[in-house]
Amino acid sequence: MTSCIFCKIVEGTLPSEKIYEDENVIAIMDVMPVTKGHILLIPKNHRENLYEMTEEEASRLFAVAPKLANVLKEEFSPAGMNLLQNNGAPAGQAVFHFHMHFIPRYDQTDGFQSDWNPKVEDYPTERIQEIAAQIRNRFDKE
Amino acid sequence: MTSCIFCKIVEGTLPSEKIYEDENVIAIMDVMPVTKGHILLIPKNHRENLYEMTEEEASRLFAVAPKLANVLKEEFSPAGMNLLQNNGAPAGQAVFHFHMHFIPRYDQTDGFQSDWNPKVEDYPTERIQEIAAQIRNRFDKE
Repeated sequence: MTSCIFCKIVEGTLPSEKIYEDENVIAIMDVMPVTKGHILLIPKNHRENLYEMTEEEASRLFAVAPKLANVLKEEFSPAGMNLLQNNGAPAGQAVFHFHMHFIPRYDQTDGFQSDWNPKVEDYPTERIQEIAAQIRNRFDKE
Repeated sequence: MTSCIFCKIVEGTLPSEKIYEDENVIAIMDVMPVTKGHILLIPKNHRENLYEMTEEEASRLFAVAPKLANVLKEEFSPAGMNLLQNNGAPAGQAVFHFHMHFIPRYDQTDGFQSDWNPKVEDYPTERIQEIAAQIRNRFDKE
């Protein structure tokens, strides 16, 4: 018996408001929405986070994203839309089965805002080049 | 001549710190990083936002995501990681060519925080069921 609530939803042993399902994924209403039309896109296989997903699982999951986004856009006419996917509690992950939030945005009273502060002084061009080189090296090692 | 800066980066007429490239996508350093290792995953085809992407483009783009996330995780050992993708200026989109942010998270001094306020009072179960029904109907119309 799994104790994962999203696995239970996939199996049908916990209720959900499902709005989409195919062989690989489900999309359900978030039960604590931050805006109107806030949904979650979830792989059926239990993967704790993005790190654990296979290339194929990721590919099949996101194939559905444009359609979901367009359906939400056409139904609710939001001013914009954010996709947010959190890995690890320090990044805000609360359920440890991969899920991607689709958050239609309306106005400044929305329950979601992103607080965005580029660290321009910490990252001059040379520092960014240095970090890029580190990442490229890491790719080469794998 | 395109005036889109990401198209120019794809074509190579504008410089960038590229960390990954394949037939369909590039990944580059964000030039105004909010945290160490902040990168962007970008489709080579010009698509303004998620609404404009084909199923296949979305699929090929996100196939790369687990690998990118793992490389960043192994190189920088962040406490967590957020993926964020903004559609429309009201959602924070600043360059109008689809891009997905990969934001390694370290601590509370990070340049990215998400301000998350579930609208529990506005969305009792019945209201969520109503919205789910609207979305399902919209799917059926398409």
